[in-house]
Amino acid sequence: MTTAESPLLVDRADAVATLTLNRPAQFNALSEELLEELQRNLDALAADDELRCVVLAAAGRAFCAGHDLKQMRAQPEQEYYEQLFARCGRVMQSLVGFPVPVIAKVQGMATAAGCQLVASCDLAVAADSAKFAVSGINVGLFCSTPAVALTRSMPIKKAFEMLVTGRFIGSTEAVENGLINQAVPDGQLDAAVAALVQTICSKSPVAVRTGKAMYQRQRGMALDQAYEYAGGVMACNMMAADAAEGIDAFIEKRPPMWVGR
Amino acid sequence: MTTAESPLLVDRADAVATLTLNRPAQFNALSEELLEELQRNLDALAADDELRCVVLAAAGRAFCAGHDLKQMRAQPEQEYYEQLFARCGRVMQSLVGFPVPVIAKVQGMATAAGCQLVASCDLAVAADSAKFAVSGINVGLFCSTPAVALTRSMPIKKAFEMLVTGRFIGSTEAVENGLINQAVPDGQLDAAVAALVQTICSKSPVAVRTGKAMYQRQRGMALDQAYEYAGGVMACNMMAADAAEGIDAFIEKRPPMWVGR
Amino acid sequence: MTTAESPLLVDRADAVATLTLNRPAQFNALSEELLEELQRNLDALAADDELRCVVLAAAGRAFCAGHDLKQMRAQPEQEYYEQLFARCGRVMQSLVGFPVPVIAKVQGMATAAGCQLVASCDLAVAADSAKFAVSGINVGLFCSTPAVALTRSMPIKKAFEMLVTGRFIGSTEAVENGLINQAVPDGQLDAAVAALVQTICSKSPVAVRTGKAMYQRQRGMALDQAYEYAGGVMACNMMAADAAEGIDAFIEKRPPMWVGR
Repeated sequence: MTTAESPLLVDRADAVATLTLNRPAQFNALSEELLEELQRNLDALAADDELRCVVLAAAGRAFCAGHDLKQMRAQPEQEYYEQLFARCGRVMQSLVGFPVPVIAKVQGMATAAGCQLVASCDLAVAADSAKFAVSGINVGLFCSTPAVALTRSMPIKKAFEMLVTGRFIGSTEAVENGLINQAVPDGQLDAAVAALVQTICSKSPVAVRTGKAMYQRQRGMALDQAYEYAGGVMACNMMAADAAEGIDAFIEKRPPMWVGR
Repeated sequence: MTTAESPLLVDRADAVATLTLNRPAQFNALSEELLEELQRNLDALAADDELRCVVLAAAGRAFCAGHDLKQMRAQPEQEYYEQLFARCGRVMQSLVGFPVPVIAKVQGMATAAGCQLVASCDLAVAADSAKFAVSGINVGLFCSTPAVALTRSMPIKKAFEMLVTGRFIGSTEAVENGLINQAVPDGQLDAAVAALVQTICSKSPVAVRTGKAMYQRQRGMALDQAYEYAGGVMACNMMAADAAEGIDAFIEKRPPMWVGR
Repeated sequence: MTTAESPLLVDRADAVATLTLNRPAQFNALSEELLEELQRNLDALAADDELRCVVLAAAGRAFCAGHDLKQMRAQPEQEYYEQLFARCGRVMQSLVGFPVPVIAKVQGMATAAGCQLVASCDLAVAADSAKFAVSGINVGLFCSTPAVALTRSMPIKKAFEMLVTGRFIGSTEAVENGLINQAVPDGQLDAAVAALVQTICSKSPVAVRTGKAMYQRQRGMALDQAYEYAGGVMACNMMAADAAEGIDAFIEKRPPMWVGR
């Protein structure tokens, strides 16, 4: 249960969960409480077999301004920071390892760990006016953990440029450099994300879950290992009722009726 | 020897082999027989020291629609599927490990394992009207083995988007995202591929073979390992008669006369 | 100390070192002497704690034409070549591992090991008229060691196309494919590089050094390892006086006063 005052709003509509960062007055800065709420809800949702898609959204004019700098400065101890970044890293890895696709829905600015959230989601749709930076460098703190996410989704020189200059890029440059999938006119952000969610929900749940998990797992493997793993996963997927139904429907030129297993 | 009825046509002209997927009525779906013919011919051609380049082409209006779904559904056994995907994975890895460059020549649609063929070739030229999708998700079967090839040549978010939505991208988007090298007007596809083949054939055969092999092998190595390996390969290449001739010709401002060793 | 006749000019202005390849009549070909000078100066500068940024520039109309082919042909021994490429590989890895950012400033052509220098720098700015190729293939020598650098910063098919065809790409195509960060009108190259240097020098030195080192080290790690490493680095960075000052200045809406530790 969440209330309007919770740092994270959780909305569940059918098979789709929307997590909304809800500290608009703080540009949704990732306080300890917000990170904890994100982790708790991601863990709970990960156990929900009915779930088919997650949207990570944000309240107010900004997507997320990164860590809560005031809170960080209030406890200047290395051990505290190690725990904080470990916690934040767990949230990011929970997005990557989440059993169904996670879509970032981005308006306004996404900076530092906020930009890392975007990079860590499977898919990202942004308003044309959104802007992205890893701006820790401007306050004497290189965005080291965001760098982990950025280098795994963007060209190496572009990611370093963002990290060392702290400069903002717009949605178009973010699309061109692989940080997001799509930029849409501001007024169409809701509709564009809804359409993507709808597309994913129109697919077989078992195929989507199978794919999300294998996709992330095979990334670091050598080519022969990856093929051996992927071949086994795909053979298993072929034994699912949904694959039989999907292929039969395709051959018979009719829409498939997924049974979800 | 191949006949007009063979699922794969093999044409050898001078030092160039063209393999043409030849099931146009089935959009060149990769039946077991076609996969077997591909593997057999790739293995035979790999032993041919005179070969300098391979073109992977397709008969009819489509490049390749992926696996033969009817054949797959006819034998619903996990062991069968494991063998089928292992066979397909071997073909893809044979393209990557092939001793000379392989160029995909793409018209019409390239879907699922057909799109994977494109991703697995060293180079790809497509007609402007060509289109690409990994559409297994539409029939309840996430394109897991194609994902292995796609994530190794495209940005991570774009590849996942294609895999989870099944949507088509056009040739321009395929160029922008690294899936293919070049898109040309439909009427110029033959000429563009011929020009690329001609360019490769104008180079020293020993340098091209050396380069193709080292390129693929060094990809997964750590930076220091890769440099150690590449330095050794390049020193070896320098001892080839063709490198001596090529450099001398360059210094003397005359065209080189390759001797092929 | 360098003189106008040195193959490498070293200029130190405040915290910025500019290394200028200085064999303009030979298009700055990387002779043994030039490679040795590069290594010696990079090693010396790496020990200089006051340094904040390096610019790798070139005298004359070209950036760098790669190895010195005449010198290479004069000593046709495999052991010699192995040592030469090992030496060159050390220079390239010294750029990657250099403690502060290295910016390539590119005018004219950057070919073979010259293109590899560009790929190996952290950042690269080029004149609009600059052009890039890995053209060893034209002289019977596949650019194997440059391939190591290219595949780690460009899409896989585009890099192979450059390597196997030897063709030039212009600055725009180089930006689109991640080889360089920025292309600017020829007359603005000095100003654009100066602006980038100024941006980097306006940041906390400790944050920039921390970031450069961690960025390159984490690239080859698995995701969980990378996050563990990056989290530790960032916690350490938070204990620096500059991070405290930077965050306090941000909160107090004033410019930071870096103390450099």
